[in-house]
Amino acid sequence: MSGSTFGTLFTVTSFGESHGAAIGCVVDGCPPGLALTEADIQIELDRRKPGTSRHVTQRKEPDTVEILSGVFEGKTTGTPIALLIRNQDQRSGDYSKIMNTYRPGHADYAYAHKYGVRDYRGGGRSSARETAVRVAAGAIAKKWLKEKHAIVIRGWMSQLGEIRIPFKGWEHVGENAFFAPNDEIVPQLEAYMDQIRSERDSIGARIEVIATNVPPGWGEPVFDRLDADIAYAMMSINAVKGVEIGDGFATVAQRGSYHGDELTPAGFLSNHAGGVLGGISSGQDIRVAMAIKPTSSIPQERRSIDKLGEPTMMMTTGRHDPCVGIRATPIAEAMLALVLIDHALRQRAQNADITPDAPRIAGLAPHGNQDVPSPRD
Amino acid sequence: MSGSTFGTLFTVTSFGESHGAAIGCVVDGCPPGLALTEADIQIELDRRKPGTSRHVTQRKEPDTVEILSGVFEGKTTGTPIALLIRNQDQRSGDYSKIMNTYRPGHADYAYAHKYGVRDYRGGGRSSARETAVRVAAGAIAKKWLKEKHAIVIRGWMSQLGEIRIPFKGWEHVGENAFFAPNDEIVPQLEAYMDQIRSERDSIGARIEVIATNVPPGWGEPVFDRLDADIAYAMMSINAVKGVEIGDGFATVAQRGSYHGDELTPAGFLSNHAGGVLGGISSGQDIRVAMAIKPTSSIPQERRSIDKLGEPTMMMTTGRHDPCVGIRATPIAEAMLALVLIDHALRQRAQNADITPDAPRIAGLAPHGNQDVPSPRD
Amino acid sequence: MSGSTFGTLFTVTSFGESHGAAIGCVVDGCPPGLALTEADIQIELDRRKPGTSRHVTQRKEPDTVEILSGVFEGKTTGTPIALLIRNQDQRSGDYSKIMNTYRPGHADYAYAHKYGVRDYRGGGRSSARETAVRVAAGAIAKKWLKEKHAIVIRGWMSQLGEIRIPFKGWEHVGENAFFAPNDEIVPQLEAYMDQIRSERDSIGARIEVIATNVPPGWGEPVFDRLDADIAYAMMSINAVKGVEIGDGFATVAQRGSYHGDELTPAGFLSNHAGGVLGGISSGQDIRVAMAIKPTSSIPQERRSIDKLGEPTMMMTTGRHDPCVGIRATPIAEAMLALVLIDHALRQRAQNADITPDAPRIAGLAPHGNQDVPSPRD
Amino acid sequence: MSGSTFGTLFTVTSFGESHGAAIGCVVDGCPPGLALTEADIQIELDRRKPGTSRHVTQRKEPDTVEILSGVFEGKTTGTPIALLIRNQDQRSGDYSKIMNTYRPGHADYAYAHKYGVRDYRGGGRSSARETAVRVAAGAIAKKWLKEKHAIVIRGWMSQLGEIRIPFKGWEHVGENAFFAPNDEIVPQLEAYMDQIRSERDSIGARIEVIATNVPPGWGEPVFDRLDADIAYAMMSINAVKGVEIGDGFATVAQRGSYHGDELTPAGFLSNHAGGVLGGISSGQDIRVAMAIKPTSSIPQERRSIDKLGEPTMMMTTGRHDPCVGIRATPIAEAMLALVLIDHALRQRAQNADITPDAPRIAGLAPHGNQDVPSPRD
Repeated sequence: MSGSTFGTLFTVTSFGESHGAAIGCVVDGCPPGLALTEADIQIELDRRKPGTSRHVTQRKEPDTVEILSGVFEGKTTGTPIALLIRNQDQRSGDYSKIMNTYRPGHADYAYAHKYGVRDYRGGGRSSARETAVRVAAGAIAKKWLKEKHAIVIRGWMSQLGEIRIPFKGWEHVGENAFFAPNDEIVPQLEAYMDQIRSERDSIGARIEVIATNVPPGWGEPVFDRLDADIAYAMMSINAVKGVEIGDGFATVAQRGSYHGDELTPAGFLSNHAGGVLGGISSGQDIRVAMAIKPTSSIPQERRSIDKLGEPTMMMTTGRHDPCVGIRATPIAEAMLALVLIDHALRQRAQNADITPDAPRIAGLAPHGNQDVPSPRD
Repeated sequence: MSGSTFGTLFTVTSFGESHGAAIGCVVDGCPPGLALTEADIQIELDRRKPGTSRHVTQRKEPDTVEILSGVFEGKTTGTPIALLIRNQDQRSGDYSKIMNTYRPGHADYAYAHKYGVRDYRGGGRSSARETAVRVAAGAIAKKWLKEKHAIVIRGWMSQLGEIRIPFKGWEHVGENAFFAPNDEIVPQLEAYMDQIRSERDSIGARIEVIATNVPPGWGEPVFDRLDADIAYAMMSINAVKGVEIGDGFATVAQRGSYHGDELTPAGFLSNHAGGVLGGISSGQDIRVAMAIKPTSSIPQERRSIDKLGEPTMMMTTGRHDPCVGIRATPIAEAMLALVLIDHALRQRAQNADITPDAPRIAGLAPHGNQDVPSPRD
Repeated sequence: MSGSTFGTLFTVTSFGESHGAAIGCVVDGCPPGLALTEADIQIELDRRKPGTSRHVTQRKEPDTVEILSGVFEGKTTGTPIALLIRNQDQRSGDYSKIMNTYRPGHADYAYAHKYGVRDYRGGGRSSARETAVRVAAGAIAKKWLKEKHAIVIRGWMSQLGEIRIPFKGWEHVGENAFFAPNDEIVPQLEAYMDQIRSERDSIGARIEVIATNVPPGWGEPVFDRLDADIAYAMMSINAVKGVEIGDGFATVAQRGSYHGDELTPAGFLSNHAGGVLGGISSGQDIRVAMAIKPTSSIPQERRSIDKLGEPTMMMTTGRHDPCVGIRATPIAEAMLALVLIDHALRQRAQNADITPDAPRIAGLAPHGNQDVPSPRD
Repeated sequence: MSGSTFGTLFTVTSFGESHGAAIGCVVDGCPPGLALTEADIQIELDRRKPGTSRHVTQRKEPDTVEILSGVFEGKTTGTPIALLIRNQDQRSGDYSKIMNTYRPGHADYAYAHKYGVRDYRGGGRSSARETAVRVAAGAIAKKWLKEKHAIVIRGWMSQLGEIRIPFKGWEHVGENAFFAPNDEIVPQLEAYMDQIRSERDSIGARIEVIATNVPPGWGEPVFDRLDADIAYAMMSINAVKGVEIGDGFATVAQRGSYHGDELTPAGFLSNHAGGVLGGISSGQDIRVAMAIKPTSSIPQERRSIDKLGEPTMMMTTGRHDPCVGIRATPIAEAMLALVLIDHALRQRAQNADITPDAPRIAGLAPHGNQDVPSPRD
């Protein structure tokens, strides 16, 4: 309830600052009997970790995770799983500038008003370093969802700055630093990023995620809708400024005769809804998109004020991602997994006994107004 | 925790079906001593109620609210405030068609899988009628926010289908059925809606809301960010498919040198962030936008299946809004008020003692890439 | 989270004051498909309602319940069930004395410090009238527990003031005004109460409750232990000052060799633990006892102060139970039912898939150091 | 919500098993600006740690705590405080007996039914070793309560087995291994414990705690009463089987004319209520007592069954406390501190603005039917 715990039944309580001793979390409510090792988590952390290409921050963090509890003889026991990631590359450099001013676009000014004090080293609690914890917890959720329900969650970058990235194939996503589903466009993305960096600037991105094989019936009707909880989850990721489900903002100009997904015995004929109807999963693919703002830390002089309210100029130096969206894909996948496992447990809590009053039909490609195939294709 | 309660400290527990005996809610955690009468709530309900123009549903519901508890001698006592709205215009008509099939775009199919049973009369729990409850609860939140913090929350329609609505002035919003901030465009909107209806179709809309005078420091750093809770609140409204904070999806193509709002002693120089930095309010206006999908109920034959999985055609007749977005503005305002009051209480719970470590500066118009003036202008 | 909602998954949100328009609650998270009518709830309310004997308050309240939502065609739908009980016998008498002083033993003084304002009519929110709501919600929980798990929850009075009431048989409990499991002692209890009243005084009582057929495995290991949640539930009942599980305070002087319930293939050999081990149900009967303090409202002059801090004498007149414990048995049963259904749902949420790693054995009578037979005997 | 998180606003999320890598917790919601070092926590851990006398377990655990986050330059920042205690003295001995049977009085059988799997080493998650975490978190709460509100929380042992311990003076509590407030009785207690051990048995105890200077107004009226949350907190401690507030079970035989604490300008004339009226603090001392059952692990042959349901005999060897109550006093103090800080924050969240509608009066010694002086005496 204090803002660092995510979820109702499968909960993640996060802790840690960018340049403190460690980051980590406690995962509570995980079903017992799930085979789980540190390697299962590490593989996801490695997808997000810094320093893997020249287009991301050069901070050296192996992000090695240690399981402190909740796993016995290779299986989850149902008790809390504590995950610990020691920070390795803290820099105790000169913070005299940053500690007395507020970096534009950053949380410094807001924290100063909220708490009166703040850990200014590397952004402290507001640093995107915290998202490693989400990826770690999400790895557990992903594994359970896959083993129990064959659910596959996959994300990709669909736009980098002005460059739209046509979806070519899932096999490309893991083959480049951008999580771009298209190998042909990668050189263009690289050149674009090199230019952004040379201009001492940063850029935004659009990330999309799809979950396949989510059974119908997950989510709650009114407030805790599946899509509402997804919006909450995604907007809680650093730098996210917009969230769409299904056709999203395109629905503003759509007609009802176009938008409403028709049903046939062979399946839904479209997926404009993005797999959620009335807040509850329909059995179609869950489709989510989000906008990631450009990194606020750029090596340019910018106007700000100091603690006394005097005007000052400041330039953020150090190691920063020129596009935080580049490493956001695994985070978005993790957050979607956390929402889904929570609602999986909530659904069987209340409705384990019921007999569905409808036949089960599948979704049919394509997805609404997009050319993206379902992961099950 | 069961999905019908909103908020952490100022909570709203909603109940009721479209054609049941009543809808209502229990508001718990309201500060005591707030002057409150049924008229304070009714004035907001009247803004949302059906039947006020030919462009909305013709269902006759006065939406008269009764305060059952929590108010004594005209003031809140700090104990739960129960609000009751009796349904007046239920129709016990012929539901034989609707009870055995699943309306495209509606929650019927998802509910049938979730619960096994459903109250199919008028959509039951999934009906947008439930949003009256939110407006009622939001009226209490709005009143407290205004009296305690001088916070003003105002929404408007910024797009109806393909028609973008330029912001002309706040004084127009209450003067037309669309909540359009522009009197000149109203005839065009009316003609557009008449055509949509004549084509037996429906259309989407874009709604925006701004909150002014929110102090810096509200919101939590990681999961329960102010913007994350706003996204959750807005996406929980029926038919919402996308949520933006500040510049939203426009940030994808923005540069960091453009997006990051600079600070000067006179105030922030822009408001691309939408009043939230690192999940915490900055003192600038909170800017939210949302996409409302077109109404799913349209009087056209559409493909569906029946309970046996056989194909069928169905046409939704009855009284429906051809654009649910038209009545969405008061709902969006209410949800924003509910988020803000909850975080107001959370903030003083944890941080009542602190001395801000920053001077207080205001925002300066204009709002990022929009031409919308602040309500305080 | 604001104190008027009980439970994690099966939640009860209570509202209402003693002399306000109505009391009631919203039950959220109830499994769908449960047959439920107002009569199912009324039968429990009638066990608790006032005016049924000369030993309880003479306030005339039929406590007629109306189901406002969540039930369709005689079955729960899984959506919130709102219950409404209109107050009938409010008295708008002269409160000039009570409004300016603080009745000893009552919440008046504490409320005045908490909220600054209070509804002083009949105790307002602090009145035991609120417990009718718990009985109503508990009736739903009881019904589900019985139908789904054959769980039986039964309470009785085991002591009235100085008079210990030997357990004779379950059949007696419903046959007298005291919920005494012993018909022979009833005349003594009646004479005792007549004397207490003639002395213008009140008296305490001890209430016990047993739940039979609770499966092993319900409850959480650390904080949300089954017994911890039971203690919370019982201590939340007006006038309860102590709670015991199993042998309770008798364990202080017990040896481990006596207390630890041994297991045999035929069952546990004793039930000193009260059916809970490490916070989790063992499959034995859940045994709970509680102390109810004497009614604070007595028609004697007592010392108090007024709002100005001046000493004053006050005498509480009006209609009051001379022993609030007399009507407490149905309330205690209801609270135990609410705890159990919540943990039933929590258990299957997390652990629906598991195979127990132990054979299922039953409990054997008798219950620890008591001579009370199990309800299944 | 998954059972390992305590509190609503000041939350403690606990993790760890007796013989796993570590135990620890995440404290979220702590007010910022509190001076805090590891030494502040260590001092409380040292009061509970094993091996300090021959009357407790001889396991060698220094219980050294590390603060991983949430503290910067010696002060809390308002962000989560993660506390880590590495286990030092795990024994990987022969568990072949324990893994296939269920120790009488222990949680083994219940866990096997709940989770299907369990970490059987030293009781795993059900071990009282987990309570070290509560003491660590409670140390933070205690410090804030003392600095902000001058609240003092002190506990003591009032009964060991059959031996009642008369209260002589606070200064004795810290001077003996039993937390006995009476130096003269210590030799008798030591002899008693030596005899219990020589008989290969264990014994129960009664622990009491008092909190002084709690302001009036903390607690919620209906479910989350201050005393209900205290009952929940205390019953969640391993081996607790009963909880009393104020006069507790003695109220069963009390008259209303005796029990109701009268008010005078000089203060309350008694404290039978234990400082809580209608669930809300009255400004008097909060008085809590609890029953601790005898340790279940004793070196005697006892009847049990194995996984196949066959009868077996088992004897628990190893290092165990012959009276778990001996080390329970710091744990009870910690849990009371956690409840109080949570309600302190809740109170100012809702009611920061109010003007109390009553003069502030103090309590007067003595405490109801006890001869225990208030800590402020």
